[in-house]
Amino acid sequence: MSLQAPAEGKVVLHSYWRSSCSYRVRFALALKGIKYEYRAVNLLKSEQKEDSYTSLNPTELLPTLEIDGVKLVQSGAILEYLEETRPESPLLPKDPKDRAIVRALRDIIGCDTQPVQNLKVLKRAMAFFDSEEEKNKQKLAWGKTTIEEGFKGLEALMSKVSGKYSFGDSITLPDLYLAPQIYNAKRFGVDLSAYPTISRVYDALEQHPAFKAAYPDAQPDAVPGAK
Amino acid sequence: MSLQAPAEGKVVLHSYWRSSCSYRVRFALALKGIKYEYRAVNLLKSEQKEDSYTSLNPTELLPTLEIDGVKLVQSGAILEYLEETRPESPLLPKDPKDRAIVRALRDIIGCDTQPVQNLKVLKRAMAFFDSEEEKNKQKLAWGKTTIEEGFKGLEALMSKVSGKYSFGDSITLPDLYLAPQIYNAKRFGVDLSAYPTISRVYDALEQHPAFKAAYPDAQPDAVPGAK
Repeated sequence: MSLQAPAEGKVVLHSYWRSSCSYRVRFALALKGIKYEYRAVNLLKSEQKEDSYTSLNPTELLPTLEIDGVKLVQSGAILEYLEETRPESPLLPKDPKDRAIVRALRDIIGCDTQPVQNLKVLKRAMAFFDSEEEKNKQKLAWGKTTIEEGFKGLEALMSKVSGKYSFGDSITLPDLYLAPQIYNAKRFGVDLSAYPTISRVYDALEQHPAFKAAYPDAQPDAVPGAK
Repeated sequence: MSLQAPAEGKVVLHSYWRSSCSYRVRFALALKGIKYEYRAVNLLKSEQKEDSYTSLNPTELLPTLEIDGVKLVQSGAILEYLEETRPESPLLPKDPKDRAIVRALRDIIGCDTQPVQNLKVLKRAMAFFDSEEEKNKQKLAWGKTTIEEGFKGLEALMSKVSGKYSFGDSITLPDLYLAPQIYNAKRFGVDLSAYPTISRVYDALEQHPAFKAAYPDAQPDAVPGAK
């Protein structure tokens, strides 16, 4: 990890290929056409706990975005910042009631689902078990249950407001959260056919060039064939 | 639980006294001087899973706010809606860079801390244990570790930007999240002296009339002396 300050006007994203929160921000940067330098922080090697990273982001979490002379943390805050300063390709509708629906869909994933099944929490739950076999079994069960609970509510709400994407026919904030959440759902063996709206929206997202640019396996630090 | 539709112009909050997310919204409603009717949903009796509530909010989560003819879910989305439609007593600063800091402080609690130690997740972790004694011991440990991890990063960031409150000298979004998080921290036995900025800000919040109005023990469904 290099921590050289970026040149003026340059945008730097500190990211890990499989970090859901980094993926959301990569997706937004691609949608809004913002060029950036990618700096990898390897979560499996705990690089997010090294001084060189915590001096930038003391929460030991990814991503961090260096932009406009500041260091921004927390994907939710970063995405709202990008929306407020780069309104082209808007990620939020204009009407406050619509915005509330869009942000609610976002929070079902961003607050109640992803944080409960991220690597840090899985490790904490797995520490209750001794054997590797049991750890792996319980890890899959924890992730699957968490995502299924989240998707149940998400499907119910999204089925009322979706169009081609989560809310209507343009990509909005919850789509950026859905992409990584489905990536995880597949890893945890969630049966996506139980969520027809979510599945249909994901199929549409997959076709979008910004999705492809942000996809984990397309990142410079991706490990081909990793489990 | 009654599910009568509210009269026009009336605001109804579906809340539980000890729900952190309900507490945040009560705090905002009090700050912005919005009068509302309180309808209790008892989480301990799983009333949030009853059809009468899920027909209102299929995510089985609190709170739900009925306002301006719509039903809003997810505290983060509700608070942004209140801010956009009732800008008096602002909960966000004006500059986008400041807003990004405020929302990041909010998300440290709202995404990475509270959802990982809420009742639902604690129950899932406790299901790994047989005896009541072990369940209680592990529950406390889980809650304490989660909150301490969150507060470590929060303290580091907040110490750079706090004034009387989390960000400067007015109450902003993260203060609404901090109040319930401290309530939980005390229940889980977190040593708050390790977080001097957080503690100082909480002491200031405690003095505010809106804090007092929103406080769990002041709600109509509070159970005095509950553990």
